[in-house]
Amino acid sequence: MADPRFHTVAGPFTVAELAARAGAAIAGAAEATRILVDVAPLDTAGPDHLAFLDNAKYVDALRRTRAGAAFIHPDKASAAPAGLTLLLTPAPYRAYALAAQAFYPDPPPEPGVAPGAIVDPTARLGPGCAVEPNAVIGARVELGRACVIGANSVIGPGCVLGDEVRVGPNASLSYCIVGDRVRIYPGARIGQDGFGFAPDPVRPVKVPQLGRVIIGDDVEVGANSTIDRGAGPDTVIGAGTMIDNLVQIGHNVQIGRGCVLVAQVGISGSTRLGDFVMIGGQGGLSGHLTIGNGAQIAAQSGVISDVAPGEKLMGSPAVPIRVHHRQALLLRRLATKKGE
Amino acid sequence: MADPRFHTVAGPFTVAELAARAGAAIAGAAEATRILVDVAPLDTAGPDHLAFLDNAKYVDALRRTRAGAAFIHPDKASAAPAGLTLLLTPAPYRAYALAAQAFYPDPPPEPGVAPGAIVDPTARLGPGCAVEPNAVIGARVELGRACVIGANSVIGPGCVLGDEVRVGPNASLSYCIVGDRVRIYPGARIGQDGFGFAPDPVRPVKVPQLGRVIIGDDVEVGANSTIDRGAGPDTVIGAGTMIDNLVQIGHNVQIGRGCVLVAQVGISGSTRLGDFVMIGGQGGLSGHLTIGNGAQIAAQSGVISDVAPGEKLMGSPAVPIRVHHRQALLLRRLATKKGE
Amino acid sequence: MADPRFHTVAGPFTVAELAARAGAAIAGAAEATRILVDVAPLDTAGPDHLAFLDNAKYVDALRRTRAGAAFIHPDKASAAPAGLTLLLTPAPYRAYALAAQAFYPDPPPEPGVAPGAIVDPTARLGPGCAVEPNAVIGARVELGRACVIGANSVIGPGCVLGDEVRVGPNASLSYCIVGDRVRIYPGARIGQDGFGFAPDPVRPVKVPQLGRVIIGDDVEVGANSTIDRGAGPDTVIGAGTMIDNLVQIGHNVQIGRGCVLVAQVGISGSTRLGDFVMIGGQGGLSGHLTIGNGAQIAAQSGVISDVAPGEKLMGSPAVPIRVHHRQALLLRRLATKKGE
Repeated sequence: MADPRFHTVAGPFTVAELAARAGAAIAGAAEATRILVDVAPLDTAGPDHLAFLDNAKYVDALRRTRAGAAFIHPDKASAAPAGLTLLLTPAPYRAYALAAQAFYPDPPPEPGVAPGAIVDPTARLGPGCAVEPNAVIGARVELGRACVIGANSVIGPGCVLGDEVRVGPNASLSYCIVGDRVRIYPGARIGQDGFGFAPDPVRPVKVPQLGRVIIGDDVEVGANSTIDRGAGPDTVIGAGTMIDNLVQIGHNVQIGRGCVLVAQVGISGSTRLGDFVMIGGQGGLSGHLTIGNGAQIAAQSGVISDVAPGEKLMGSPAVPIRVHHRQALLLRRLATKKGE
Repeated sequence: MADPRFHTVAGPFTVAELAARAGAAIAGAAEATRILVDVAPLDTAGPDHLAFLDNAKYVDALRRTRAGAAFIHPDKASAAPAGLTLLLTPAPYRAYALAAQAFYPDPPPEPGVAPGAIVDPTARLGPGCAVEPNAVIGARVELGRACVIGANSVIGPGCVLGDEVRVGPNASLSYCIVGDRVRIYPGARIGQDGFGFAPDPVRPVKVPQLGRVIIGDDVEVGANSTIDRGAGPDTVIGAGTMIDNLVQIGHNVQIGRGCVLVAQVGISGSTRLGDFVMIGGQGGLSGHLTIGNGAQIAAQSGVISDVAPGEKLMGSPAVPIRVHHRQALLLRRLATKKGE
Repeated sequence: MADPRFHTVAGPFTVAELAARAGAAIAGAAEATRILVDVAPLDTAGPDHLAFLDNAKYVDALRRTRAGAAFIHPDKASAAPAGLTLLLTPAPYRAYALAAQAFYPDPPPEPGVAPGAIVDPTARLGPGCAVEPNAVIGARVELGRACVIGANSVIGPGCVLGDEVRVGPNASLSYCIVGDRVRIYPGARIGQDGFGFAPDPVRPVKVPQLGRVIIGDDVEVGANSTIDRGAGPDTVIGAGTMIDNLVQIGHNVQIGRGCVLVAQVGISGSTRLGDFVMIGGQGGLSGHLTIGNGAQIAAQSGVISDVAPGEKLMGSPAVPIRVHHRQALLLRRLATKKGE
């Protein structure tokens, strides 16, 4: 059970309620009216807990589980113990996520402007917004419905946020238009000047950065990540894209829908990603590249040329993943021969 | 045209005014009194817009442009359409930057201490300084003329900032002496303890960090970058050095003039860079190295020994760039032969 | 001498006092009652200064030093000039650290809640705590004795901090339990949601992150580093572990005692480190790995499989350090043969 100091459990729910929420079919022991009070992992769950099996590696835990019910793929159902109520679904992890959201919903915003917060009189806040202590909201800012602006965060002049946007503490937004249900984590920096200057023997000449940052619906921007605004065109983050912590996104970058950027990734200026691109942790992309839909870039890879849709790359500089494995193997073999 | 919600265009200006500001010579259609209202890229510019050609890749856009005027290198002038007023300069991008600064000047500070800002009574603020809401300025801080201290930023006790320094929101400065016209972006951390401790079986013994951070004129420090103060000597950033986002600079590092550190670079303690050194994104330097003037380190490279002036390195560990290319080629060839 | 604008020197102390504090034996000129007023490097120290020799590279500076006293390993004592009082110890750097702490102690907290700070009425602050300007302390927070909460920092609801914890400016803590004498540097982000979501064609489904971050005694978390809370289990940082700047620690990671993570390291979710593991700058670890006690991972390495205790790895993907050196050498040789 989650520490009640930090997490408040809702419910209880019946198996039937949770199956409906998650779009799962009841099978196995099939106790649709059984009361469930919490989620738990297979190995620690008790009879009033809901668990799930997603990774085949945990089939043994499934066999021994004392859970009351579990989300499971129909193909794995035969491994379940007799007394377990099965909630069959082709996507058990997704179903678990929805059930866990039922037990642990985001606390609703506590509407109002907290002490110490400074809201410019020209800013417009939608109904149900919460502005936490010492947050600062600039001139002409527009917030949609039920937004939360975290303590000590700063929303710069003119920014527009959609509905149910949650900005964590100590974040800074400027020069940006943000969609609905976006989550900005603590310390994220959005909209500052891109890294644009012209060299000069006396001192670099700053190039005014005249674009914006446009963030689609359902995007997440991780803690201490940085997204610079465009130099003329905009920097664009497509709907449903997930950005982990400490990620850098340069000016004019355009990212499609549903991409996943793991922690410490860096994308240089003017590079474009299609939809559903995945980049592993600490991966880096040069500027002015085009990365096709569904491409996958392994962790720590360095991409220096365009990538076709669906390609899988690895290494620095990045090569197709098969080539990389072959090179690593070859090198290892040669080094062993010569050296020992 | 830049979004007026965020950017306010100045002007208009005549061609002659902009040529003078940028030090360019008027040629081509040569309409010195033509009125220009904005900057724009070659492909979208109209007759009252100013464009530029810097990258040869865009010569086609030049041929088709409807811009009223454009900065251009004399060598490329022959490709320009007849009606275009040319502003000839050997450095078109620099000229564009200066013209764009005319159209989009930094808004001047709005002098005064905003609500919620806490300024220690012993701090001294020069004329025209703006302290934004909820910023905190410590004891004995000295600000020059026309500085801006961003909302929710913290300037620690004793810090000295020159004239026209701009500190973005949510930044933290301590133990530092900062020159004129420096820009510190949101969330940058300057002056905290270096990573210094003596190992011990019971618990690490912290080594007091007794130095400072000294930042020269015209330096930029990117969003969420971190610069630790020296352990005894100072950490020093030379004039005109440009530091991108999420860059780490360890204690005692000394960086010369006009260096460029791209995003996510890391420089370990006590390493010294000469002038005009360039380091690509995610590059890393070990500690206690000496990097000569004008050296260039490719993105993601890992430098573990001294670098001579003007050397170009790549790879992890870094080798001369020609060697790296040859190794990559060789490896690719061998792997292809063996594997297929 | 350290800049008095930032550092206040305590003392003076006698040689005997400092020897006692650092556990060193007096030898050489052996003036136990000599008065020392400051620490200084061997090459700039004067007769009333205390220096140290740790790195054999500086033996020449020892020979020429004018310092009054120096910490030194007994093996190096013969190189010392005649007039120098020696403080013999097997760990001169550690001894220096303790002496420097005597000369430059952390300033004690100035107890009280500063102007602009917002402390929830249900929070409990131990004796001697200092809450700096515009800090925000949430509901049910518990602080031990003599904590400092930096200006503009945010401590989220329910967090528990031990004694003498120092949180720098602009940091954010949430969902965490923190031990004694922990130091959190400016802009660190602790306790936000881990990067957990289930893929979905419409939009990613967020997985509630139901764990916490547990931080042991004497831990340091560097500037702008990020530590996500667990998804169900906790994220755990063992006592005495030192985390540098811009480090990323994913959800469910467990780190043992006395580990050292250099700047820009990234550790993916659910990986476990034993005790005294060292990871060089920009190193990355995949998720769900087990890293044995005392393992050492070189800078920029990428670890993708389990590591045995005491192993030393390098490269991306990481291999034993001898293998890596051999591969680099071989590659260099082959490339030279072929190319020139």
